Amino acid sequence: MTELPGSVNATAIHPLDPSHFAPSETRITHVVFPGTTNHHGTLFGGEALAYMDSAAFIAATRHCRRKVVTRHLGAMEFRRPIPQGTLVELIARVVATGRTSMTVRVDLLIEQMDSPARELGCTGTFVLVALGDDGQPTDVPPLEGATDGR
Amino acid sequence: MTELPGSVNATAIHPLDPSHFAPSETRITHVVFPGTTNHHGTLFGGEALAYMDSAAFIAATRHCRRKVVTRHLGAMEFRRPIPQGTLVELIARVVATGRTSMTVRVDLLIEQMDSPARELGCTGTFVLVALGDDGQPTDVPPLEGATDGR
Amino acid sequence: MTELPGSVNATAIHPLDPSHFAPSETRITHVVFPGTTNHHGTLFGGEALAYMDSAAFIAATRHCRRKVVTRHLGAMEFRRPIPQGTLVELIARVVATGRTSMTVRVDLLIEQMDSPARELGCTGTFVLVALGDDGQPTDVPPLEGATDGR
Amino acid sequence: MTELPGSVNATAIHPLDPSHFAPSETRITHVVFPGTTNHHGTLFGGEALAYMDSAAFIAATRHCRRKVVTRHLGAMEFRRPIPQGTLVELIARVVATGRTSMTVRVDLLIEQMDSPARELGCTGTFVLVALGDDGQPTDVPPLEGATDGR
Amino acid sequence: MTELPGSVNATAIHPLDPSHFAPSETRITHVVFPGTTNHHGTLFGGEALAYMDSAAFIAATRHCRRKVVTRHLGAMEFRRPIPQGTLVELIARVVATGRTSMTVRVDLLIEQMDSPARELGCTGTFVLVALGDDGQPTDVPPLEGATDGR
Amino acid sequence: MTELPGSVNATAIHPLDPSHFAPSETRITHVVFPGTTNHHGTLFGGEALAYMDSAAFIAATRHCRRKVVTRHLGAMEFRRPIPQGTLVELIARVVATGRTSMTVRVDLLIEQMDSPARELGCTGTFVLVALGDDGQPTDVPPLEGATDGR
Repeated sequence: MTELPGSVNATAIHPLDPSHFAPSETRITHVVFPGTTNHHGTLFGGEALAYMDSAAFIAATRHCRRKVVTRHLGAMEFRRPIPQGTLVELIARVVATGRTSMTVRVDLLIEQMDSPARELGCTGTFVLVALGDDGQPTDVPPLEGATDGR
Repeated sequence: MTELPGSVNATAIHPLDPSHFAPSETRITHVVFPGTTNHHGTLFGGEALAYMDSAAFIAATRHCRRKVVTRHLGAMEFRRPIPQGTLVELIARVVATGRTSMTVRVDLLIEQMDSPARELGCTGTFVLVALGDDGQPTDVPPLEGATDGR
Repeated sequence: MTELPGSVNATAIHPLDPSHFAPSETRITHVVFPGTTNHHGTLFGGEALAYMDSAAFIAATRHCRRKVVTRHLGAMEFRRPIPQGTLVELIARVVATGRTSMTVRVDLLIEQMDSPARELGCTGTFVLVALGDDGQPTDVPPLEGATDGR
Repeated sequence: MTELPGSVNATAIHPLDPSHFAPSETRITHVVFPGTTNHHGTLFGGEALAYMDSAAFIAATRHCRRKVVTRHLGAMEFRRPIPQGTLVELIARVVATGRTSMTVRVDLLIEQMDSPARELGCTGTFVLVALGDDGQPTDVPPLEGATDGR
Repeated sequence: MTELPGSVNATAIHPLDPSHFAPSETRITHVVFPGTTNHHGTLFGGEALAYMDSAAFIAATRHCRRKVVTRHLGAMEFRRPIPQGTLVELIARVVATGRTSMTVRVDLLIEQMDSPARELGCTGTFVLVALGDDGQPTDVPPLEGATDGR
Repeated sequence: MTELPGSVNATAIHPLDPSHFAPSETRITHVVFPGTTNHHGTLFGGEALAYMDSAAFIAATRHCRRKVVTRHLGAMEFRRPIPQGTLVELIARVVATGRTSMTVRVDLLIEQMDSPARELGCTGTFVLVALGDDGQPTDVPPLEGATDGR
């Protein structure tokens, strides 16, 4: 019933090529399915927060390659409800480092299923701390390209 | 193998008695089970945020009896990791109202399973807005007992 | 677009004040969201049972501060379906104790989102047993205020 | 690294053959994974109850081919904790019918991963009611083979 | 309000009778509830794949009584979307064995809630490998009744 | 206790800049947490399949901006178990198109938490079909840059 497309040019993708691997930027896309909405049919706020924290957790882990925990979350504005059937993309990036902490900015983008238009749903700033094997804060590498001595 | 306790004095509980129903305070207790932890065996931060937002959502709904959405979240400090097997109680209370918005304070208490000692894990301040049937912000009742004209 | 409420009188809440902590009564409120309903849009019965058992588990843990397991569940009547968008509050209280067991009464209250009216959805009686470190039943404290020698 | 087995004799299975389809007996097997256990590493009681109710729901639906709701649950004994890594099989069967209700017996069998030995973990009796399009109780077919006029 | 059916003939079921236990065939039935659908109201493809892999995992475990891991999955055709409110039954059977591997055929049957008619939704072939305590592939019993020396 | 990093150079990120938005490549990173593992502490195969299908679903939706359903899944090899605490990144890309279908290649990369080294865990090829409002297959745009007339 369905015609299948032709053969695939597998060489077009190089997922293990380091030039395609940007560890300081983590992207996660979700579809807003009924299992994650409130009874109004929009993404539950707590679910959005969980998505954002997860992206921050991964970005910070990739920066320091240590066990990390969320320590602080900046104030955050939710611009509008996100209806079921929408795509939500999280983009997380380490934007500053302290001696043992990393600040991660997470943008939540809202993308309609039926159009490439996207808008910023909210932005969060998470501070995570690296922990050593003894459970105490431990040093993290400075942010590459930062010029302020951190 | 197990002896069963004696008969229950059912009259001891009056769950529908209005004097036991404090709509402005919502309490939710969770057990930190493996399904909600990260691989370090502590509660995932995003899960804690989802618990807090859910408590705020219920407290605000009970205040205005309208559809509500989270609009703003204040800065928040996570004081320490919460290990698996811990009890976590959320206490949410509407602490201020605007014309169409409600500020809900949510305290997350950490309670050891094997002791009644409790400590404050973190506190969050959520602002939720009431929406009318047209999806536009709608008036909420002023906070009872507030004396500043709001 | 949304005016924010004024400053919060944080001293109004004392979550760590022992006078606010009633360990023998555990309250848990859920919102019935689509992720927990059957295809008729009402709360799945198994989900309601899981909510009740969880409340009983916490109430019994708080009574004895031991590892506990559910051993017995009394007959239970579900009075009516609980539609999506409803609030469900569980109130669990230890109502009797044996040497190693605790009987917990759990009331499930149904509360409409748009009105403070509440009704009793069902009541369950769970018997849980305390286990020592050896996995064998171990003594639990008698119920405070009980006068029948248990 | 792994040798693959030979070709499959697909004709050995006839899943649509009516002789293989016993609608009055519903079987569901689960593996007890960490996501469903408490912090002691045993299946959470509420999860077991949800499994049992789900099996009863399906068995009753298959009997009457109507919308069904759980109305009553008989007293139940949990014989022993079920550790992570165990198989749990539910066997549900309609054992009696009233005019608009069905009684479903659900046996929960515990099966060790490393041995075919099985034991009965608990048995529950669920009464479900069939509802018509108007939401009112509606007639169900009598149990086939029953001889007592029901 | 609901009349309850008469007493149950408990002797009609023998769940521990070995003649009722067919370890080479595993059956699992699910109801497609909103928590598992996409925003079109049909079962999410990934959920169906997870159901099938779970059935294969259990069937292979029951054959060899060892730790097993999925190694290979054959090409698979999804014949049609499965709407919310449908029953889905998985039937898994070990159909071939190698020295350390088992091939499991999994049929996914679609059954309407309001009719006994069933149709085949898709069929998958999973190869799982048994692992010893050292994590290395280990021998599995040959398939009973197979005559080709494996 | 934790020193916080300095101010953030917010202009460093342009999430809505079209040059940063590659709709034909969808990236999703997960952390393997206990809630998604089997009792051996490795990612459950069905969960990995669900992750991959989800990535294919999003990549195909972004290509055609239509409702899509998974129709076919190519044979797949799982190279090794993925332990708890690992990062898993899915990279999905439309690699071929037919008149109404899209072939999506999904690579699952395994990344250790404590090192930037990554390896390919498995690759899957999913064919999804676009559906119009009538539920019938509908045309999809040809793959940009393809030169074979499709």
